[in-house]
Amino acid sequence: MAKIITPKILPGFMELLPPEQILFNKIKDTIREVYESFGFLPLDTPTIEYSEVLLAKAGGETEKQIYRFNKGDNDLSLRFDLTVPLARYVAQHRNDLNFPFKRYQISKVFRGERPQKGRFREFYQCDIDIIGSETLSLVYDAEMPAVIYNVFKKLNIGAFKIKLNNRKILNGFFEGLGLEDKTADILRVIDKIEKIGAENVREELVKLGAEKQADEIMSFVSTRGTPAEKLEKLKALSVDSPKFSEGVEELEKVTELLKTFGVDEDYFDIELTIARGLDYYTGTVYETVLTDYPGLGSVCSGGRYDNLAEYYTKQKLPGVGVSIGLTRLFSQLRENNIITSDSLSTAKALLLPMNESYIPYALKAAAALRDNNIPAYIFYGGKNMKQKMKYADRSGIGFALILGEDEVNNQTITVKNMKTGEQQSISFDNLTAFFA
Amino acid sequence: MAKIITPKILPGFMELLPPEQILFNKIKDTIREVYESFGFLPLDTPTIEYSEVLLAKAGGETEKQIYRFNKGDNDLSLRFDLTVPLARYVAQHRNDLNFPFKRYQISKVFRGERPQKGRFREFYQCDIDIIGSETLSLVYDAEMPAVIYNVFKKLNIGAFKIKLNNRKILNGFFEGLGLEDKTADILRVIDKIEKIGAENVREELVKLGAEKQADEIMSFVSTRGTPAEKLEKLKALSVDSPKFSEGVEELEKVTELLKTFGVDEDYFDIELTIARGLDYYTGTVYETVLTDYPGLGSVCSGGRYDNLAEYYTKQKLPGVGVSIGLTRLFSQLRENNIITSDSLSTAKALLLPMNESYIPYALKAAAALRDNNIPAYIFYGGKNMKQKMKYADRSGIGFALILGEDEVNNQTITVKNMKTGEQQSISFDNLTAFFA
Repeated sequence: MAKIITPKILPGFMELLPPEQILFNKIKDTIREVYESFGFLPLDTPTIEYSEVLLAKAGGETEKQIYRFNKGDNDLSLRFDLTVPLARYVAQHRNDLNFPFKRYQISKVFRGERPQKGRFREFYQCDIDIIGSETLSLVYDAEMPAVIYNVFKKLNIGAFKIKLNNRKILNGFFEGLGLEDKTADILRVIDKIEKIGAENVREELVKLGAEKQADEIMSFVSTRGTPAEKLEKLKALSVDSPKFSEGVEELEKVTELLKTFGVDEDYFDIELTIARGLDYYTGTVYETVLTDYPGLGSVCSGGRYDNLAEYYTKQKLPGVGVSIGLTRLFSQLRENNIITSDSLSTAKALLLPMNESYIPYALKAAAALRDNNIPAYIFYGGKNMKQKMKYADRSGIGFALILGEDEVNNQTITVKNMKTGEQQSISFDNLTAFFA
Repeated sequence: MAKIITPKILPGFMELLPPEQILFNKIKDTIREVYESFGFLPLDTPTIEYSEVLLAKAGGETEKQIYRFNKGDNDLSLRFDLTVPLARYVAQHRNDLNFPFKRYQISKVFRGERPQKGRFREFYQCDIDIIGSETLSLVYDAEMPAVIYNVFKKLNIGAFKIKLNNRKILNGFFEGLGLEDKTADILRVIDKIEKIGAENVREELVKLGAEKQADEIMSFVSTRGTPAEKLEKLKALSVDSPKFSEGVEELEKVTELLKTFGVDEDYFDIELTIARGLDYYTGTVYETVLTDYPGLGSVCSGGRYDNLAEYYTKQKLPGVGVSIGLTRLFSQLRENNIITSDSLSTAKALLLPMNESYIPYALKAAAALRDNNIPAYIFYGGKNMKQKMKYADRSGIGFALILGEDEVNNQTITVKNMKTGEQQSISFDNLTAFFA
């Protein structure tokens, strides 16, 4: 007898029971479908890469969290996001790609951080990016929210709001105030406004040495109104910075295009406090919140960057992209009962031949169903009807098909609706129509 | 300026350009679709597990190949197959599963072996298994080849043959010859018959000390004929072993059922030399070869085992399963030009608004296409028609849609077939019908 080892997995790793996995896959498939409908091309980069390549830019927190190890003479790491592999890929294959290059990747990434509620060490990211060679039209900045809009509409998980900003507005504004050397610190402070409130933000600005400019900053971040009104207010500000004007102009153009892209006005907004990654994004930035569940934070974020792959090539590769952290999103949606797992099986019909002699008839029925894209599951076990029905019940498959002597003789099938308990006899020839 | 690091990946890791990736995904999707059509439930286990759990059984070669490392206080490993995680999963969640439990998993596994032609360190396995609690009907042994048959029929990669055997026949036969203590060695020798020929196999048998029985063994492994004929010949042998008779009976029943399952007789065969994993399989075993490419070896293998999870639970969990090594199969199919990548894009239509003012019209057309599940890609770049057409050409999308002043005025779209170069004007209202 072998020694028994307790079967368990590491904390911070999501593993689902089949009904949950079916639901998870449904969401993943929907995201993929929308991404492909916009012409994004699939990519599937290796899970393991050379540490030297993967960590070309990384530092600080990322480096601590990474799964890094030696195998033979190689220093290896598991990917911690999908952006660095994309940068490496585009630089490596730039002569074989058609720019602008639109790619999606839906893959697991790994970060060995301390596990805590809502944080995962292994999680799916669903990324889209559009990479230009030397330049990239601003129209793509408007296509991103259009894709997000279609994804979340199709996921059907309630109202949501795509929030837009432009880093040039923020950087230009602080430049105009003579605070360019403190921009990073100030952004960090105003990013907390939802959490700590305006009063505390103001205090922290003073502490940072921006006492003179604090009023102006507070008035800027508190700009209210529709996107059009906010843009008008921004244009009315006398900020001495060409970058600021450029940012306002870009944001105005993107929001105008959004309407053309069919994004309902109720679903987007301008939010001047959004900064995102401090040393990465250079233009438009995005966050997406579920209106009824603001506590979940942003469920889809990203932005425009000037140069994707400067660590791997001298070619300038500007891009724009967004990412959905699917594992975290899924766990939040389930926790808040925003989605429920209604199908416990991939199969639509469970076929129950009463004994072995009815297997041929069951197989004929299953083949007819599968030919019509109706997944069918034949259960060959169970000593009697009671055992068979117990299995049917636990399987969660909507309909149990009973196949015995009467059914074969009359070329019928007894169909039991497992939810209502109703039973009816249908002719074999009507079987696929019943499920259509 | 950042230091430039050469963008590259490790040898033995497959990474594809988009047209190849589209083709790869198509195959992966087909396999998943067939698996689901038979009611297999999806599973997605963690990539990283505790070494203690993952290596409960492993030893020798596996242990050397594994990617194993420490993170914090944990001794971790990347999964090297999908069977061990399945065993751990079923043992861990046995109270939440409905037995027989049918699951599929299509995931990457990792083996750090010396990279060589056709060998990968990271590769997809596409596994199905059916796990019973205490017992599992032999009918499921026939369902496995039925699934394989449907997969390879649908993949449409030419003729193939599913080869069946039963380990009880082999073990019983050698037991009857008084060679039970040499079974493993003999199996290893006869497994090489295709490679080294009958004469050399006979010589090696003699070396193993089976001189007396060598003729009988050679006559056994050379049994020719249809499955029915082979079974008759086996039954005519006077082998003194109940295990042998049991194996013949099981194999006969499985092949009979196969016809009921609709598996064309041309597509399966009995092959008495197939043994598969020596200390794992206990009953039916499978291999699948592409008839026109026998050199590729088995592209889908598996079998019946008595006890899936003895290292994790005392509950007896018999099962039957097969696995497709997709990464290797794909690389072989491409190398031998058995499949060709015909679609260079996920999109069916490339929309080319002549300048920004025609973007709204292009977006309207794209939305109409997407509403009808026709992926549409809008290209916003290119200074002139020539540049736009160059992009269209390289994108590999079948049809370029030109949208300019004439088109908007007449509510038409100029459609260019990128393969033939033919151009025609269609009315906006006929757009989706054109692609249907």
